[in-house]
Amino acid sequence: MATAAVADLHASLADPALDSMNFLNEIANDYPDAVSFAPGRPYEGFFDTALIHDYLHRFEQHLLVERGFTPEQVCRVLFQYGRTKGVIDDLVTRHLEIDEGIHAEPESVVVTVGCQEAMFLVLRALRADDRDVLLTVTPAYVGIVGAARLADMPVVGVDGGPAGIDLPALAGTVRRLRAEGRRPRACYVVADHSNPSGVSLSPADRRALLDLAAAEDFLILEDNPYGLFSADDERPPTLKAIDSGRRVVYLGSFAKTGMPGARVGYVVADQPVAGGGLLADQLAKIKSMLTVNTSPIAQAVIAGKLLAHGCSLVKANQPEIAVYRRNLTRLLEGLARRFPADGPSGIGWNRPRGGFFLVLSVPFEADDSLLERSAREFGVLWTPMRHFTTGAAARCAIRLSFSVLTPEQIDEGLDRFAALAASIARRGDVRPRDTDTPLR
Amino acid sequence: MATAAVADLHASLADPALDSMNFLNEIANDYPDAVSFAPGRPYEGFFDTALIHDYLHRFEQHLLVERGFTPEQVCRVLFQYGRTKGVIDDLVTRHLEIDEGIHAEPESVVVTVGCQEAMFLVLRALRADDRDVLLTVTPAYVGIVGAARLADMPVVGVDGGPAGIDLPALAGTVRRLRAEGRRPRACYVVADHSNPSGVSLSPADRRALLDLAAAEDFLILEDNPYGLFSADDERPPTLKAIDSGRRVVYLGSFAKTGMPGARVGYVVADQPVAGGGLLADQLAKIKSMLTVNTSPIAQAVIAGKLLAHGCSLVKANQPEIAVYRRNLTRLLEGLARRFPADGPSGIGWNRPRGGFFLVLSVPFEADDSLLERSAREFGVLWTPMRHFTTGAAARCAIRLSFSVLTPEQIDEGLDRFAALAASIARRGDVRPRDTDTPLR
Repeated sequence: MATAAVADLHASLADPALDSMNFLNEIANDYPDAVSFAPGRPYEGFFDTALIHDYLHRFEQHLLVERGFTPEQVCRVLFQYGRTKGVIDDLVTRHLEIDEGIHAEPESVVVTVGCQEAMFLVLRALRADDRDVLLTVTPAYVGIVGAARLADMPVVGVDGGPAGIDLPALAGTVRRLRAEGRRPRACYVVADHSNPSGVSLSPADRRALLDLAAAEDFLILEDNPYGLFSADDERPPTLKAIDSGRRVVYLGSFAKTGMPGARVGYVVADQPVAGGGLLADQLAKIKSMLTVNTSPIAQAVIAGKLLAHGCSLVKANQPEIAVYRRNLTRLLEGLARRFPADGPSGIGWNRPRGGFFLVLSVPFEADDSLLERSAREFGVLWTPMRHFTTGAAARCAIRLSFSVLTPEQIDEGLDRFAALAASIARRGDVRPRDTDTPLR
Repeated sequence: MATAAVADLHASLADPALDSMNFLNEIANDYPDAVSFAPGRPYEGFFDTALIHDYLHRFEQHLLVERGFTPEQVCRVLFQYGRTKGVIDDLVTRHLEIDEGIHAEPESVVVTVGCQEAMFLVLRALRADDRDVLLTVTPAYVGIVGAARLADMPVVGVDGGPAGIDLPALAGTVRRLRAEGRRPRACYVVADHSNPSGVSLSPADRRALLDLAAAEDFLILEDNPYGLFSADDERPPTLKAIDSGRRVVYLGSFAKTGMPGARVGYVVADQPVAGGGLLADQLAKIKSMLTVNTSPIAQAVIAGKLLAHGCSLVKANQPEIAVYRRNLTRLLEGLARRFPADGPSGIGWNRPRGGFFLVLSVPFEADDSLLERSAREFGVLWTPMRHFTTGAAARCAIRLSFSVLTPEQIDEGLDRFAALAASIARRGDVRPRDTDTPLR
């Protein structure tokens, strides 16, 4: 029988980054009745299959009425092979103009199979040889590390600290890498309500990061899945909105603002490439050999949602925005009640200004075995921060996601988590150790 | 401004394999009124947007009625993030059982974003280091070469000749590569109505290929987009159907049998991996960092089509099968009338037993500049065979696709092509040259 060993397969398959996702999915499947603060999934209360049909119809009508297509042409768009760069580029750029103040030309857009494909396309393009390195602000989304592994691109993390970015450290790392003969091609950052930290960059840090990228000649990969979900009405400009030097490759996601099931994302890559149009055109060449094109049916569903709300996803997501604000407040209040600042718990947390996540610091090792015990004995799931960074601080830190829960589930989940914490305090059996190997 | 040069990007972007697809798409866009024997696209006469809604409803009903899902669970399947390996694996394996006699366990299936993603997943997994090589039977589909380029995996072509495979040459190449310290990990082959040659392997060659793969320890990547479209009622078994040693990784496509716009394909990878379940599980780990999961909405559309026809795509495609048979006959008869065997044209062709393609041999260089002239002066498009192989014979060979045309278009296209051939014969200006560099 044909068999193989993992050691005979691509190195990414032996990498903890790829196992992380699997482990976290498996434990969620093993404890379906646990209250889960783990998944970064959008709220499900407004899902309705009729919407999918409605959105499809809207896009069909848009092609017929606004764009003057014949019925045969509409059929061809939805059924047949299509343009590699996508068929909703004009609607994507209208949304970016309306919601983000980003002026993007449709030809700089490649519509992708979720933002994850966009990440891989960019890294595959930028990884020319062994010198090339990706920088990430850490803690970082597991998906960017995984995509880099698939592109054989080393990742160098620079701890973002409480401000979400440490510019002197980033500059120092860039210079050190160059001195070693390596090429930091780009720095990955989530400027708004980052996953996993929940932190947003200050407007001053955003401008300074752009200046640093220009001075040190690297690209910024701005991933923005949560920007719309601000807990107040202030939304600082995205990096791309103030990017006068085409330093920013903008990674767009409709997973949280449209729906995950469409698997539609996009990349804005308006950097000129000598002899090759825009970077977007090069990314499209890669995409033509990776997924050919993004399903036009899936694109139509997202297009229909955009069209239903005048291409504003801020408008489209008003009910969701209200839910996430309510949940964040409920979580912060619930934490304060259960773990008062003057109490003995030793548990603290940050106060994100929006998004899906916050981070707890805890006085014990928050590792996978504790997560397993938490699920089994206390019925509550969360994510060890060590899945997102190798930093020492992450060993006693936990990501709590509050996007998919009801207020009652948040309360119940916090009660269970408090019971876990009390049990640990009583037994004193999971104190920080030095022998523990972080996952990555 | 941030700029780059193609030379600073991944090597695949300077590779002719990736430019091939672009060139062919561009010339099709530049001459929209030409009769095109170029694209390998399914027939459009049965497209109807109402079908998409109908298929979606059918899958929703299937989940509710046959699988006992609640309406909330149905919504979650379609809207939310989902299983990396897909949500229609059971329907895919039923189709394989019914239409192909392939017994596949659902856990060996990964549903992918078209067959193209399946190719990349497999090559990314198999490419462990610089020794690893992919074999292809040539002429070969451009997409497999492109996917190999993205995985940094060298491709060694072995000319298939008129039988579609040359087993002694393949065995010799495998042994030569091993003697050089390289590892031929797999051989890519389309056993049925191959793209671009139209050739099918004989039953004896199928068995001998499986024996060779076992003896020489390599995998077979069987790609089968056209197998259902037989011009007679005989369909030899696929390699996977007679694969008793799990040597075959089966690359499945719904682009021609379902619809291209769904962008849904799959891979059956039932090879055990020491310490890692099946090869399918390893492919799913890669997929989780490439596209996360295939859009469940797109999967639902394909599932609905399967459910509407008892999971038989042979049944579902009876009208299309009739069209492709009619077109093949029309094309063969039209060629015979215009280029009689005892005439002076010097033009010959093979007689495929089904599929979308046949190959002409012509007494002149069939290159991209002649294609351009053919489009401009004669209004007819075709594909130079040199896009699919470097072999000398390919320089004077042309792929004609007949899948998307009406009988009238076939006649008109052949008239135009005959005018081009007559013009060349008169002017004698495109005779075979030795200085011509094949595209790849």
